[in-house]
Amino acid sequence: MIGIVVITHGDFSKALLETAQDIVGKQQFVSAITISYSEDPKVVRQRLEKEINANKTVDDWLILTDMVGGTPCNICLTLVEKFGEKYEVVSGVNLYMVISAFINRNKMPLTELKNKIIEDARLSIMDVKEKFLSRIKAHE
Amino acid sequence: MIGIVVITHGDFSKALLETAQDIVGKQQFVSAITISYSEDPKVVRQRLEKEINANKTVDDWLILTDMVGGTPCNICLTLVEKFGEKYEVVSGVNLYMVISAFINRNKMPLTELKNKIIEDARLSIMDVKEKFLSRIKAHE
Repeated sequence: MIGIVVITHGDFSKALLETAQDIVGKQQFVSAITISYSEDPKVVRQRLEKEINANKTVDDWLILTDMVGGTPCNICLTLVEKFGEKYEVVSGVNLYMVISAFINRNKMPLTELKNKIIEDARLSIMDVKEKFLSRIKAHE
Repeated sequence: MIGIVVITHGDFSKALLETAQDIVGKQQFVSAITISYSEDPKVVRQRLEKEINANKTVDDWLILTDMVGGTPCNICLTLVEKFGEKYEVVSGVNLYMVISAFINRNKMPLTELKNKIIEDARLSIMDVKEKFLSRIKAHE
């Protein structure tokens, strides 16, 4: 089983996980870590580590974070040496990335899942009006 | 001035706007619209329309939504005919998309801004571990 952690500035990690589960159904081994600006990164790192160590039934971890260079992302990187190939970190989390992770987590190994959600999340970023209007024109 | 609305399932639009403003500073003419599952899409559409019509100092609108095919996105599309070239809709919203919109909204016209945030948001989706490890190797 691949566990999923969403870690972000503020509490949109929590909101994202809730919305994604509302859409595709309740998930096991998922958690949101929110970081406030007043928090010591070391304390957050301990929270993330505790989360990863707590689930013994989870072999691998997919960690989704908001953006490269931010504190949540940097905290994830401090764990690279400790967890090695047991975890992957992807930045730029959006709703479809989380949904793709939920849908595909039981279908493929971690590295493949990481590539899949990167691809899916990029594809979900779209010029909606252009796409919609081109469909209408195609039907005219 | 280009106004920005983030419209999503659940309340992560609100959390996203708060976090982005915590990072780059308080913004004018931005708003979050959250949609619950029990809400009538017509009511949400009215809220979005009211939001757009309320700000007379705003010429154009950039609407950021969670994903194509979802109710928030479909609501935006019902306004295409009404607002025409005065607004753009981009799906797949993530933190960097919002930050890019904030940073660039006064520097370019609406169509250019839409293309810029699509590009920036896609680039923000990254295999963080791979990027980090390749940097370490480059310095070895």
